[in-house]
Amino acid sequence: MTPRVAIIGAGPCGLSQLQAFEQARLKGADIPEIVCFEKQADWGGLWNYTWRTGLDEYGEPVHGSMYRYLWSNGPKECLEFADYTFDEHFQRPIPSFPPREVLYDYITGRAKKNHLRRYIRFSTVVRQVEFTEGQFRVRVKDLVADQERVETFDFVVVATGHFSIPNLPKFEGIEQFPGRVLHSHDFREAREFAGKDLLVVGSSYSAEDIALQTYKYGAKSVTISYRTAPMGFKWPEGIEEVPLLTKLEGKVAHFQDGSSKKVDAIVFCVGYQHNFPFVEDSLRLKTKNRLYPGSLYKGIFWMSNPKLMYLGMQDQFYTFSMFDVQAWYARDVMLGRIALPSYEEMAADIAHWQAREESLANPFEQIDFQKDYIVDLADQVDYPSCDWELTTELFKVWEHDKEQSILGYRDKVFRSPCTGTEATVHHTPWIEAMDDSLASFLGN
Amino acid sequence: MTPRVAIIGAGPCGLSQLQAFEQARLKGADIPEIVCFEKQADWGGLWNYTWRTGLDEYGEPVHGSMYRYLWSNGPKECLEFADYTFDEHFQRPIPSFPPREVLYDYITGRAKKNHLRRYIRFSTVVRQVEFTEGQFRVRVKDLVADQERVETFDFVVVATGHFSIPNLPKFEGIEQFPGRVLHSHDFREAREFAGKDLLVVGSSYSAEDIALQTYKYGAKSVTISYRTAPMGFKWPEGIEEVPLLTKLEGKVAHFQDGSSKKVDAIVFCVGYQHNFPFVEDSLRLKTKNRLYPGSLYKGIFWMSNPKLMYLGMQDQFYTFSMFDVQAWYARDVMLGRIALPSYEEMAADIAHWQAREESLANPFEQIDFQKDYIVDLADQVDYPSCDWELTTELFKVWEHDKEQSILGYRDKVFRSPCTGTEATVHHTPWIEAMDDSLASFLGN
Ligand SMILES: Cc1cc2nc3c(=O)[nH]c(=O)nc-3n(C[C@H](O)[C@H](O)[C@H](O)COP(=O)(O)OP(=O)(O)OC[C@H]3O[C@@H](n4cnc5c(N)ncnc54)[C@H](O)[C@@H]3O)c2cc1C
Ligand SMILES: Cc1cc2nc3c(=O)[nH]c(=O)nc-3n(C[C@H](O)[C@H](O)[C@H](O)COP(=O)(O)OP(=O)(O)OC[C@H]3O[C@@H](n4cnc5c(N)ncnc54)[C@H](O)[C@@H]3O)c2cc1C
Ligand SMILES: NC(=O)c1ccc[n+]([C@@H]2O[C@H](COP(=O)([O-])OP(=O)(O)OC[C@H]3O[C@@H](n4cnc5c(N)ncnc54)[C@H](OP(=O)(O)O)[C@@H]3O)[C@@H](O)[C@H]2O)c1
Ligand SMILES: NC(=O)c1ccc[n+]([C@@H]2O[C@H](COP(=O)([O-])OP(=O)(O)OC[C@H]3O[C@@H](n4cnc5c(N)ncnc54)[C@H](OP(=O)(O)O)[C@@H]3O)[C@@H](O)[C@H]2O)c1
Repeated sequence: MTPRVAIIGAGPCGLSQLQAFEQARLKGADIPEIVCFEKQADWGGLWNYTWRTGLDEYGEPVHGSMYRYLWSNGPKECLEFADYTFDEHFQRPIPSFPPREVLYDYITGRAKKNHLRRYIRFSTVVRQVEFTEGQFRVRVKDLVADQERVETFDFVVVATGHFSIPNLPKFEGIEQFPGRVLHSHDFREAREFAGKDLLVVGSSYSAEDIALQTYKYGAKSVTISYRTAPMGFKWPEGIEEVPLLTKLEGKVAHFQDGSSKKVDAIVFCVGYQHNFPFVEDSLRLKTKNRLYPGSLYKGIFWMSNPKLMYLGMQDQFYTFSMFDVQAWYARDVMLGRIALPSYEEMAADIAHWQAREESLANPFEQIDFQKDYIVDLADQVDYPSCDWELTTELFKVWEHDKEQSILGYRDKVFRSPCTGTEATVHHTPWIEAMDDSLASFLGN
Repeated sequence: MTPRVAIIGAGPCGLSQLQAFEQARLKGADIPEIVCFEKQADWGGLWNYTWRTGLDEYGEPVHGSMYRYLWSNGPKECLEFADYTFDEHFQRPIPSFPPREVLYDYITGRAKKNHLRRYIRFSTVVRQVEFTEGQFRVRVKDLVADQERVETFDFVVVATGHFSIPNLPKFEGIEQFPGRVLHSHDFREAREFAGKDLLVVGSSYSAEDIALQTYKYGAKSVTISYRTAPMGFKWPEGIEEVPLLTKLEGKVAHFQDGSSKKVDAIVFCVGYQHNFPFVEDSLRLKTKNRLYPGSLYKGIFWMSNPKLMYLGMQDQFYTFSMFDVQAWYARDVMLGRIALPSYEEMAADIAHWQAREESLANPFEQIDFQKDYIVDLADQVDYPSCDWELTTELFKVWEHDKEQSILGYRDKVFRSPCTGTEATVHHTPWIEAMDDSLASFLGN
C-alpha cells in the first residue's frame, strides 16, 4: 500500500516539504500519499500577515507574529531557493532587503508554480498526534465545518514553526502598569506608539526591529532593557539600552543598575516557546531556541521514532534554503533512499554537534556552524547546488554592516550565490521608506 | 463502584457544582468521586483577574475577559448565594455594586469555607472529552508537569463559561487601520485610551461598560456603533451612539448613516462564542448567546447523552444564584434523586421554553422568563429558599435606574432578598471612584 505522509503546517517549512516530494514526483519517483494540514485559510505561515491577535475567528490561537512595515532582517541572497531564484520569480534584479509582502510573494510563487495547493487542507488544525500499532493517529478539525476526524499516517512531518507561542514571564508590578503591555507576538502597528515613551524588553531580533520601527514611525523614546548583554549598536538619539527591568511602579520602570524611566507602554520581546500541544508526550520536542536542538537526528528525526520529523526547529540564521535542504533529506529518508543509523549512532551524532555548538564563541562561528550543518545534509540529496561558503561570507558582511549602521544596513546590496545577480539599490533608504507594499517596493 | 464525576472549570459554575455535592455530603449522602479540572492556577473563573492577554505562560488561550476598574453591572442582591449571604461573608452591610475584587472575595469565600479546593486540580486543562463504551474518556494536560493523561468518568459537567472566546468578524479596511484594534476580551486598562478618540463597536453590556470606563478614565471621545439598535441611554457629553461601522479608511470610520469619525483606536465589543474545542463533535453544544440554548434539557442536560451536563450556558441576567440552582439540580440527577424523562419529553420541554423565549418583547419579560426557569429547577431541589419574585423586582428597578442615569445607577442601594439587609451607600459615587480595590471599597 502507498504510505501516507502528514505534513503539519503550510508555512515555509511545510511548503519546502511539499516541494521536495513534488520534485521527486516530476522526476518519476513513486511518492507517498501526502496530506498537508494548515490551520490558517492560506499558506505562507508567519509571512501570511494577519491583523488579528490573540484568538482567531474560530477561537484558535492566532499564528501570525509578523507586523506591518516588517522588512527582511537578513539579505535575501542568504535565503534564496536554489531551485527557484529571485531572478526567476521577479524577472529582474531587486534590492536585498525586501519587505514582508515581497518575500511572501516569492515563497508562495514557487508553491503556485508547482501547484502545491492541491496537497493542502486549509482551515484544518491538527489537534492530536499519537503513535499506536505502528501508525500515527492524527486527529484534525475542519474549522469551517466545525468537525473533527481521525486519520492514520505512516510518517508525520511537524512544520508548525516555533515563533508563534509567546514566552512571557511576569515582572513585578505589571498587573498595575497603567498602559499597554504586549508581547512582540501581538505587535502589529508601530504608529500606535507615536509620541509615546516605549519600553522594549529583550535584546534579540524582535527587540532590535521593534525598537527601530517604533522609532521610525514616531515613538518619542525607546528604552531597550537587556538581560544578558546589550546589542550595542550605534543607536540613533531617542533609543538607548539599559539593564534588565526589575519592577514597575505605576508608569515607572526600574532597572538593575538602579536607573529608572517613566514609560507609556511595554513591548516584551522576550522570545517564543517551542510548543506543540498537539503532539503526545512521548513524541513532543522540548527545547529552547538553539542552533542544535536535542533529540533530533540531523536536526530533523525524532530519535526514538524517526518516522516523526520536525523541520525548522533550529534558531535561524539560514531560513528558506535550510528548510529546503532539511525537507529534501527528510523526503529521501521517507522514500527509502537514505537509511538512518542505529539509535546509538544517532545519539552520538547529536552529541557531537551539540558539543561543537556549545563551544561557539561569536556570531561568525555560529554562522559557520549552521552552514556546516546544512552542507552535511545538502551533500546527500539532489537539492540544486548552491555556493554555501559564499552565503556565510554574505552573512558576515551583513553582521559588519549592522555594526556600522543599524539604520542603514538594509540599504546595502548583495550578490546572489545562486545566480550571481547583483541586487539593485532600493529607491528609498529604509529609514525613509514608510510604504512597505509590494507595489511601492517594485514600482520604481 | 463509586461513580466518577469530572467538572471542567472552577469558575462560579464549577464552584457551584462542588458546593452542591459538598452540601449533600455534609448532610450524609454518598457522593461520587469528584475531580474538578481548572486550567488556571487559581479558582474564580473570569473573576480571577489576569494582566495577560492572548496566550498564557503555557501557550494556552487566556481565559480572563475582565479588566481593571470593573464593577458589578447588576445589584449584588440579585446574585446572592442563598446558602452564603453577603452578610455572612462581610459581617456587615456593603454597597450594592461592588468592584470585581470584592465579588471575587465573596465567591471564593464560600469555596474556602467549605474546603472545596481539595477537589480541584489546578493548572490542568481538559483537552478532549469522548464517550466510548458507556464512559467518558477525558484527556487532560497538567500544564506545570507538561504531561497528559486520560481518565474515565461516568458524568461530565462542562462549566467553562461562554464569555472567553471572542467573536470577531472582519470589517473592511481593518488591516490598514493605523492604531490599536482589540476585542473586549483583550481589554485590560482604560487609562491606555486617555486623550484618545475611541470607537466602540457593539451595543450590549461590554460596549456600555467599556464606553463608560474609558470616558471615566479620560478618553477624549467615545463613539459607540450599534448593529441592531442603540442602547439609548442618556450619555454624558463625549459619548455618542451611531449606526453600524461599514468600513475604515485610514483612521476614518464610516457608518451606515453616511456619517464618519476619525478615531485612534477601536474596541470591538461584539460578544463571544460558545466554543468548546475539547468536546467531541457529537457532544458539543452549538448555540448563540440566548436565554434558552437548544439541546439542553432544563438548560443543563445534553439531550442525546444526559450524563453530559453544561452549566451557565444561558445569556445571563441571573448569575451566581442561577448557577447554584442548576448545580443542585444536576447533582440530584447524578445522585439518582431526580429521574430524567424520555428523549421526546425532553425535546418537547425545550421546545416549549424556546417558544416562550421567542415571544419575549422586552427586558422585563426576559427577566421574568429567566426567573421562571430558575424557579422551575429550584422547586425540585433543597437549595435554601430565596425570594425569587423580589429579585425580579430589583432587576426591574435596576433597568429603570439605568434609563434614568447611566452614570449614577451604580450608586443606588438595594435590599437583600435573602437576609432583608439594606445595602450601604458607597463612600464615593461610582463616576468618581477611581480606586476599585477591596481595601478602598470596604475601607470607610
Ligand atoms: C517577527 C518575525 C520576523 C521574521 N523575519 C524573518 C526574516 O526577515 N527573514 C527570515 O528569513 N525569517 C524571518 N523570520 C523567521 C521565520 O521563522 C521563518 O521565516 C519562517 O516563517 C519559518 O517557517 P516555518 O514553516 O517553520 O514556520 P511558520 O512560518 O511559523 O509556519 C508554520 C505554519 O504551521 C501552521 N500551524 C501551526 N500549528 C498548526 C496546527 N496545529 N495544525 C495545522 N497547522 C498549524 C501555522 O498556521 C503556519 O502556517 C521571522 C520570524 C518572526 C517571528
Ligand atoms: C467582562 C465581563 C464582566 C462580567 N461582569 C459580571 C457582573 O458584573 N456580574 C455578574 O453577575 N456577572 C458578570 N459577568 C458574567 C460571568 O459570565 C459570570 O459572572 C461568571 O463568571 C460565569 O461563570 P462560569 O463558571 O460559567 O464561567 P467562567 O467564569 O468563565 O469560568 C470558567 C472556568 O473554566 C476554566 N476553563 C475553561 N476551559 C477549560 C478547560 N478546557 N479545561 C479546564 N478548565 C477550563 C476557566 O479557566 C475558568 O476558570 C461578566 C462577564 C464578563 C465577560
Ligand atoms: N525581519 C525582522 O526584522 C525580524 C523582526 C523580529 C524578529 N525576527 C525573527 O524572529 C525570530 C525570533 O526573534 P526574537 O527576538 O523574538 O526571539 P529570540 O531571538 O529567541 O530572542 C529572545 C530574546 O528574549 C530575551 N529574553 C528571554 N527571556 C527573558 C527574560 N526573562 N527577561 C529578559 N529577556 C529575556 C533573550 O535574552 P537573553 O539573551 O538574555 O537570553 C533574547 O534577547 C528570529 O528568527 C528573528 O530573526 C525578524
Ligand atoms: N460588570 C460589567 O460591567 C460588565 C461589563 C462587560 C460585560 N459584562 C458581562 O459580560 C457578558 C458579555 O457581554 P457582551 O456585551 O460582551 O456580549 P453580548 O451581551 O453577547 O453582546 C454582544 C453584542 O455584540 C453585538 N454584535 C455581535 N456581532 C456583531 C457584528 N457583527 N457587528 C456589530 N455588532 C455585533 C451584538 O449586537 P446585536 O444586538 O446587533 O446582536 C451585541 O450588542 C454579559 O454577561 C455582561 O453582563 C459585564
